[in-house]
Amino acid sequence: MNYRMMTYILGNIMQAEGALMSFSVLLALYQAEWNELKVFLLTIALLLGLGTLAKRSAPKDKKIYGREGFVVVALSWIVMSFFGALPFWLSGAIDGFINCWFETVSGFTTTGATVLSEIESLPKSILFWRSFTHWIGGMGILVFVLAIVPLGDERSMHLMRAEAPGPVVSKLVPKIKSTAKILYGIYIALTILEGLLLFIGGMPLFDSINHALSTAGTGGFSIKNSSIAAYDNAYFEYVITIFMLLFSINFNLFYLLLVRDFKAVLKNEELRYYLIIVGLSTLMITMNILHLYPTAESAFRHAFFQVATITSTTGFFTANYEQWPELSKTILVVLTMLGACGGSTGGGIKVSRFIILLKLTLREIRHIVHPRSVNIIRLEGQRISEETIQGTTGYFITYVLLLFGSLILVSFDNYDFTTSITAVITTLGNVGPGLSLVGPVENFGLFSGFAKLVLSMDMLFGRLEIFPMIMLFSPSIWKKSYM
Amino acid sequence: MNYRMMTYILGNIMQAEGALMSFSVLLALYQAEWNELKVFLLTIALLLGLGTLAKRSAPKDKKIYGREGFVVVALSWIVMSFFGALPFWLSGAIDGFINCWFETVSGFTTTGATVLSEIESLPKSILFWRSFTHWIGGMGILVFVLAIVPLGDERSMHLMRAEAPGPVVSKLVPKIKSTAKILYGIYIALTILEGLLLFIGGMPLFDSINHALSTAGTGGFSIKNSSIAAYDNAYFEYVITIFMLLFSINFNLFYLLLVRDFKAVLKNEELRYYLIIVGLSTLMITMNILHLYPTAESAFRHAFFQVATITSTTGFFTANYEQWPELSKTILVVLTMLGACGGSTGGGIKVSRFIILLKLTLREIRHIVHPRSVNIIRLEGQRISEETIQGTTGYFITYVLLLFGSLILVSFDNYDFTTSITAVITTLGNVGPGLSLVGPVENFGLFSGFAKLVLSMDMLFGRLEIFPMIMLFSPSIWKKSYM
Repeated sequence: MNYRMMTYILGNIMQAEGALMSFSVLLALYQAEWNELKVFLLTIALLLGLGTLAKRSAPKDKKIYGREGFVVVALSWIVMSFFGALPFWLSGAIDGFINCWFETVSGFTTTGATVLSEIESLPKSILFWRSFTHWIGGMGILVFVLAIVPLGDERSMHLMRAEAPGPVVSKLVPKIKSTAKILYGIYIALTILEGLLLFIGGMPLFDSINHALSTAGTGGFSIKNSSIAAYDNAYFEYVITIFMLLFSINFNLFYLLLVRDFKAVLKNEELRYYLIIVGLSTLMITMNILHLYPTAESAFRHAFFQVATITSTTGFFTANYEQWPELSKTILVVLTMLGACGGSTGGGIKVSRFIILLKLTLREIRHIVHPRSVNIIRLEGQRISEETIQGTTGYFITYVLLLFGSLILVSFDNYDFTTSITAVITTLGNVGPGLSLVGPVENFGLFSGFAKLVLSMDMLFGRLEIFPMIMLFSPSIWKKSYM
Repeated sequence: MNYRMMTYILGNIMQAEGALMSFSVLLALYQAEWNELKVFLLTIALLLGLGTLAKRSAPKDKKIYGREGFVVVALSWIVMSFFGALPFWLSGAIDGFINCWFETVSGFTTTGATVLSEIESLPKSILFWRSFTHWIGGMGILVFVLAIVPLGDERSMHLMRAEAPGPVVSKLVPKIKSTAKILYGIYIALTILEGLLLFIGGMPLFDSINHALSTAGTGGFSIKNSSIAAYDNAYFEYVITIFMLLFSINFNLFYLLLVRDFKAVLKNEELRYYLIIVGLSTLMITMNILHLYPTAESAFRHAFFQVATITSTTGFFTANYEQWPELSKTILVVLTMLGACGGSTGGGIKVSRFIILLKLTLREIRHIVHPRSVNIIRLEGQRISEETIQGTTGYFITYVLLLFGSLILVSFDNYDFTTSITAVITTLGNVGPGLSLVGPVENFGLFSGFAKLVLSMDMLFGRLEIFPMIMLFSPSIWKKSYM
């Protein structure tokens, strides 16, 4: 493997993280949070120093292969989470390094599962960093680096493919760098728009910024102990619902809107499936909880919010759905697995993968009926290659194995079955809340250090879509023959 | 489709069921259970009459294609369950036809989930029929028919493939009829051996016969309210444990033992995986429950029994493992999904499918490391065809979709998540007990009629490995063009 090039990329990542962390420095200064200021400055110094050290000798050979792309992406996320956890740890905001690690991984992977029961009393610069990890992780730090650092086009694609969610990754424009810039442009614009809409509606500025950052990454950390329910404001709820959905659809669609190709947006197969899934789930849950709310509008609003927050894999809440009937809870658990659209900031199995899997089932049935027929599978009108099909089934099988493997490990903690299985599902899907003891109004603080490590690994597996993480732990990749 | 031939096969099935039911007539006579005698005679008359009617015109065209094989197998199982339920219903032994249907499907599919809380007071001829459905369903009624009815060899293979469990179906000897006879010979011999061993150890004759029949089919119905725990006898427990495991391995291995090909048995990949899984699970659970039992032997014995009963998909119990620590329960739930070996009477996903799925994951990893390498998957030393791989992934995807689809339907009943999901998993896996309200000492009587129908369909989906049932409900198969 090209260790020099990998070190060079890691150096870039660390510098980028240091730069992004400087927003918290400004906030700490403004808020006169001197302890936090010290901690942020120290971490930034570490990041910039080590980053520069890692980049000191620019590699001559800049070739990066698929496997190196996978490994460097997985490593980047681990390194970035380690340093991202330092402010929480050094400032004493969160007790114990494993808790800090869990919270940071949960942030970057846009899971939003927290170990904290008391959030509101944290210093503002810390709260901001916590929300900001969602925003950084949502679009991906490598995509960010690709947007600003000069790397060859072909090798960048390997990096982007390993970090970007969904079964197929496509470039918007011929150049990766331009693609990354466009994606970040859309991302920033939508984030600002949401923040403005919340602020105009009366949400305090700091709250608006944090919730916009958290929504944009489809993260789920709130600066309120009782999440969006704290405001009890229908306008906020509708705004956030709409934006959670916007951030969970393929960003290519926004680009198509920008270039006025409305037809392509309307024809998008994944979007249509997604809207049907969201619509049907909202309808079923609304009917199921109608008797619990004073008006049909409030039942609809809570159902719509919770469906959007789960399926977009954000994880805010406006209602303690732990107390809803089982049907509603089960639908939410299934949506937790399913997740958002490919090419969005959302997690989960992804709607496009689900469509491919569904079509594979239908292909198998057709194959039994007509054994000699050739069955092509199409997505978005295009033939899906055998390689994508193998990648999708490979992903799905590994996802299920991982789910039940993690479940066994987490059940060492001896919490009830619903708690353990939904904790695994919600971390693998980067959603945040589960059911029972990890329900919306609960937190992950109860788990042992071991279970927290397992669950934080599941978040990374989920965010990076399994294979980069597996590569990292696969002995064969580190063999001499690959160097 | 060749409706005439399908009707002819159905006629054979009904006659066979009528013949098999006559054992209960003898028992009813001996026990002087006159009400039951009447009911059994009436059902047999119906089966033989309708069967003869269905066979009245032997079809000239005996061709059967794959799709017809699938449909006729699914239909057979539904018809056979309908008539099998009549004795329970007409005798008044079980209230309501849906309950009788559930119990019979549970019997034939060798699930062993019951709606009854009081079993011991039922008439003996009814109890015997209940256990006997396990035995009939274990090896498969079509295999039984194939063993006695003259059907061409090629078309029989389609039937056998649709009914026999596992990803690959192989003939032991060139002729299907001889293969079916050998399989039934082994099946009968092992059943008698187990019955004898139980009887010699001091179990009453009637109990020995019923538990041998139930074990042989890997069913799980007991004639005792508290299953095997009722005897509190370590010898019985070990005997049944061993036989549950024997009936859950590929019957081809017994044939290989008969022809003295011991090497092939020792080299069998599925068997080795299976023994490792059983061994590891037993070890982990023994350590996990050690503190709950007076001696290490009793902890081991209960762990071994419960692992064997779940992984063989039988579903007896000697301990209320609902009260065991969560780790043990979770392992049992995972084993419930995994199930037994292909070509046995056990259900579940099957160990051989699991091996193929595991190897597909490894293939995907190898593909990322070496994108250009050709990756062949082998099972038992033989290359797995792309068709088998597609069949296996198709099965697995459909299994997961079915699991979560059923879960949503069952959760209309509003029981807790653990109850609903383990009820679906245990019926799909043909095991019997789940956790929480469907734990080992509980029963399925609490569910609504709708949920019982869904769960009984899941049993049929599980036993017939999904696709025959899907074909039955697929509109395209009934289109004119296929006639």
